[in-house]
Amino acid sequence: MKRTVQFLPDNVTIEVEEGENLLTAAAGAGVFIQASCGGDGVCGKCRVKLEAGELASGEKRLRPEERAQGYRLACQSTVTSDVVVRLPDGERGLRKPKTTRAISARSMTSLLGTWEVSPPVEKRFLQLPPPTIEDNIPDLQRLLRAIKKGCHDCAEPTYDHPQLLRKLPFILRKANWGVTVILLRGKRAEEPDRIIAVEPGDTTGKLYGLAVDIGTTTVCGLLLDLNRGKIIAEASAYNDQIAYGEDVISRIVYSQRPGGLKALQERVVRTMNAIIERVCKKVLINPSDISYIMAAGNTVMSHLFLGLDPKFIREAPYVPTCSQFPLTRAADLGVYAHPSVRLFLYPSVASYVGGDIISGVHACQMYRHPELTLFIDIGTNGEIVIGNQDWLVCAACSAGPAFEGGGIKFGMRASSGAIENFHIHPETLEPMIITIGHTKPRGICGSGLISIVAELLEARVIDQQGKIRRDLDHPRIRAGADGYEYVLVWGKDALAGQDVVITEVDLDNLIRAKGAMYAGYQTLLESVGMTFADLERVILAGNFGAYIDLERAIAIGLLPDIDRERFFFLGNASLTGAQISLIDHHRFRERTEVSKLMTNMELSESPDFMNHYMAALFLPHTDMGLFPTVREKLSAMKNAE
Amino acid sequence: MKRTVQFLPDNVTIEVEEGENLLTAAAGAGVFIQASCGGDGVCGKCRVKLEAGELASGEKRLRPEERAQGYRLACQSTVTSDVVVRLPDGERGLRKPKTTRAISARSMTSLLGTWEVSPPVEKRFLQLPPPTIEDNIPDLQRLLRAIKKGCHDCAEPTYDHPQLLRKLPFILRKANWGVTVILLRGKRAEEPDRIIAVEPGDTTGKLYGLAVDIGTTTVCGLLLDLNRGKIIAEASAYNDQIAYGEDVISRIVYSQRPGGLKALQERVVRTMNAIIERVCKKVLINPSDISYIMAAGNTVMSHLFLGLDPKFIREAPYVPTCSQFPLTRAADLGVYAHPSVRLFLYPSVASYVGGDIISGVHACQMYRHPELTLFIDIGTNGEIVIGNQDWLVCAACSAGPAFEGGGIKFGMRASSGAIENFHIHPETLEPMIITIGHTKPRGICGSGLISIVAELLEARVIDQQGKIRRDLDHPRIRAGADGYEYVLVWGKDALAGQDVVITEVDLDNLIRAKGAMYAGYQTLLESVGMTFADLERVILAGNFGAYIDLERAIAIGLLPDIDRERFFFLGNASLTGAQISLIDHHRFRERTEVSKLMTNMELSESPDFMNHYMAALFLPHTDMGLFPTVREKLSAMKNAE
Repeated sequence: MKRTVQFLPDNVTIEVEEGENLLTAAAGAGVFIQASCGGDGVCGKCRVKLEAGELASGEKRLRPEERAQGYRLACQSTVTSDVVVRLPDGERGLRKPKTTRAISARSMTSLLGTWEVSPPVEKRFLQLPPPTIEDNIPDLQRLLRAIKKGCHDCAEPTYDHPQLLRKLPFILRKANWGVTVILLRGKRAEEPDRIIAVEPGDTTGKLYGLAVDIGTTTVCGLLLDLNRGKIIAEASAYNDQIAYGEDVISRIVYSQRPGGLKALQERVVRTMNAIIERVCKKVLINPSDISYIMAAGNTVMSHLFLGLDPKFIREAPYVPTCSQFPLTRAADLGVYAHPSVRLFLYPSVASYVGGDIISGVHACQMYRHPELTLFIDIGTNGEIVIGNQDWLVCAACSAGPAFEGGGIKFGMRASSGAIENFHIHPETLEPMIITIGHTKPRGICGSGLISIVAELLEARVIDQQGKIRRDLDHPRIRAGADGYEYVLVWGKDALAGQDVVITEVDLDNLIRAKGAMYAGYQTLLESVGMTFADLERVILAGNFGAYIDLERAIAIGLLPDIDRERFFFLGNASLTGAQISLIDHHRFRERTEVSKLMTNMELSESPDFMNHYMAALFLPHTDMGLFPTVREKLSAMKNAE
Repeated sequence: MKRTVQFLPDNVTIEVEEGENLLTAAAGAGVFIQASCGGDGVCGKCRVKLEAGELASGEKRLRPEERAQGYRLACQSTVTSDVVVRLPDGERGLRKPKTTRAISARSMTSLLGTWEVSPPVEKRFLQLPPPTIEDNIPDLQRLLRAIKKGCHDCAEPTYDHPQLLRKLPFILRKANWGVTVILLRGKRAEEPDRIIAVEPGDTTGKLYGLAVDIGTTTVCGLLLDLNRGKIIAEASAYNDQIAYGEDVISRIVYSQRPGGLKALQERVVRTMNAIIERVCKKVLINPSDISYIMAAGNTVMSHLFLGLDPKFIREAPYVPTCSQFPLTRAADLGVYAHPSVRLFLYPSVASYVGGDIISGVHACQMYRHPELTLFIDIGTNGEIVIGNQDWLVCAACSAGPAFEGGGIKFGMRASSGAIENFHIHPETLEPMIITIGHTKPRGICGSGLISIVAELLEARVIDQQGKIRRDLDHPRIRAGADGYEYVLVWGKDALAGQDVVITEVDLDNLIRAKGAMYAGYQTLLESVGMTFADLERVILAGNFGAYIDLERAIAIGLLPDIDRERFFFLGNASLTGAQISLIDHHRFRERTEVSKLMTNMELSESPDFMNHYMAALFLPHTDMGLFPTVREKLSAMKNAE
């Protein structure tokens, strides 16, 4: 249910979901309230006065008489009715344009298309006639005959699991000839159905599938009830391989050590098993009730998962072992699954454009739409796909680990205590800091970093080269061990008791990362004779993409400065693709086509890319003509000064 | 080179191969020479006098002066020139019609058809372009592209062995991108080629296949050079499962004991491995150089080989687990083979009409000829197929183990010391005995048993009910522990020093066995509205079939009394089918069709069969009209008396 929050004295009104945290809501809407402790409730800076309505508020850091006077800590308050709150003296409800942070259900449908509940794996109950001396065909043939019955142009079903045959005679007799077959749907006449398993009795009511996104950092799983096409449980976990390196390159390096490949394979399987256990526990089913698994991961993750050596992915000319992965029995890899259950891995295109991207593209079906679409997944390796129903080109840009906290002094992954949202007061230069989990700040995650840089740029604390202005006399600006820095959090408000800062070295790293992405879009667009103006849709995939503040990402030059309505945030598109494939066999079949449609471009060796990259090492860009709205905003700020 | 042997005083002349044993040649041609010790040279009965030409003879049992007088022991002599020999006084060169014992090369070709040297598994050498940054497709795709090159309508090759992918990048680079792929040929556009293995360098010169007949008693293997389509080595060995029972029923019984199935599976694999080692040693290749294996066995052997429980094969209504067996990797079953090598098992039709029969029918292609053909494999279970290019019916008759020595007092398998050929002097009733290996007699094998019964019948030592005539006063005819018996070998000439006899109980068992076979032909023919007169060809398969004396088999009623020119002896047809499948991919493809063409009939439950069986419990048959030539011969004998 929607509630309104009116901020005085500037009379800014925003709409929020009932139950939302007041500080988070304000930050999301661009209403500045000073906040130093990330939302932990200890700094007491975000004190507001409730003038109308009700807030459910904690007691932290407020004396009873203050509460009685109507004071509340925004970070400790959740909105339970329409409210009017007054900001402290000197603070203003500075309103910044609302940024698109989530896609509506309607536009999600327009993006993903529709799908039927008609899974590629189906269960069918068969009551077989028991054998007699007149009809004593073999057990398997009896089963095949029943499956084929009523479908005269169907090819004879196949099977390929000897274990199935070993048990079949006993299952049939134990079940008194009433069994459920699990079939992988073929294309009827063209391609036969394939028997995956046979279960005694009628188990058609229970048909489950697991969609898995095997990320370098995080593995996410969805358990689906395939009879209804619904998600019934989800879970995610850090990829256990992290112990052997944060990014794909360090994993490849580790894989070359004796026993390294095996250890990495076991770790990711262990992670998947943990997810399987968790989702199954949530809905009280057994892992062996899962009838199939659809997974997607980048090329390195896919190789490691299958135990394929990724050695040559790292060495020029960057050749993976394969791009279409073999259909595998999950149990053969060590996954907790019924021995007959298949695990499908999305195909990849190249060493650095993997199955996660194919799955994302497959989810959003940009290959079916006439609109020219840019698909972006931002990470250590940013992957880019451009195209429409007629063609698709893709590339990976080695953005470096800045967006994942790497190479940033206080960088960290997006977990509890990471600054994820940041505003700065344009006059006082004091910050409004929101952390994940509203705990005391520990560091800065990727989306926080983008917020910080965009805000510092807009407040002219840094210049367009990413240098901190020497001429500002402010306690938060100082020369530190790594050059000039801005203090985001004083030690007293920080988790480790130590000042949390952003340095010029951090800024350099961020600029290189966003520059690589932008140069990637440009190079790929140029390769097909297009410009940003031709883009009709920009789809941001990936968990990181889902948390990016669009306006700010454009402000620093990470995303192109085009009509905001063209941007779509898809979240974990890789997982969504796997989910759709599980539910609809038409979409399932399409998945292998997608990778074949794509033409990969190696940016690392492209002189055009290098030129674009050099030009992009500026905030937002050396060619300000590419960023008209940012240029306008920056000059407005400059004039205001 | 052919030589002639003229026997005096009756002036019978036969043609023999140079180097053939004189006694064996005489017996084969129906020339009677008394012989008691099986050809061992100890009884001295087979003394003949050389009157012209030369014989290479041993010295055994002849004094120098006898040799000087021209005497020789027929069993110790081999023919080295045209010779004239005189039989001892009172012996006569009684000539009986020569029996067809082997098929000529010409008629073998007419029977088996022709085939190309174009194996279903082929090797292709590919020199791949090394990857560059402009062409850095995955290793597998590079390989697939090269395979597909020049064949635009071909489906993309497939592969299904993850191990292949694990090694591929290293093989390609080690071999400097020059590799040999081993492909299982698909049907081009319709069905893709399948990559079985990739080897560094050019190994196309070495392409070997193994054909195996997995018999209940004996496993036979042929190693083929598939580039030339030639057999280069062969070996056979007793099926190691014999320790757990002689026939399929006792194997099934054993399989139901704890660990029994596993033990049986391991034993037959061990036997196959021994054969692989032996054939490979003969031509100095490595077992891993074998690129594929084609095997055929009866339904029980096929089940046990794959580790499928044969339990329900034994229980009415006699249902096997499957008739089309899954394509298997040999190494997965424990066979010494490269991990990628496939093992094909011929499909079966029913519990007692197995892959060995299909392979035999496949070899002789009776399903392609207009002539009505009866295909017979005689053993414990006699299998029968009748049909032509339009239809095929088949059945198994439980003949019992008599033909394999079972239920016969001195019965034994066809090995050293087994009486395999027998003649009786119509007047003296003294025998001419030839054993396998020309050693002292130990017992009687199946072909010997047929000889003995046919000769005893013709000499009227037994009547048509298989009873020994009480009215003959002869030292060899006597009442023994098991009723009346005829002494084949006196203890002094026998290996064990004990008289070797044939009893009326033995005769009963043989009559039941041959009666079941004959009743089988009749029932099957009647089921399709045919009679023996309609039969245009009778093909005898199986090793036992190859040793049967046609005239005698007809005389006892085991084979129908029709024109002898219609009989063909195919030997181990099962092995021949497997061999042809290895060499010619068209024939290879046909093999699965064959089993689908056949309609199986369960004789055990057929009242018609029971009636025919009862009528056949006579020598040769109660309806003598079915055996005109035998009737004529028997009455001639009777009149002569």
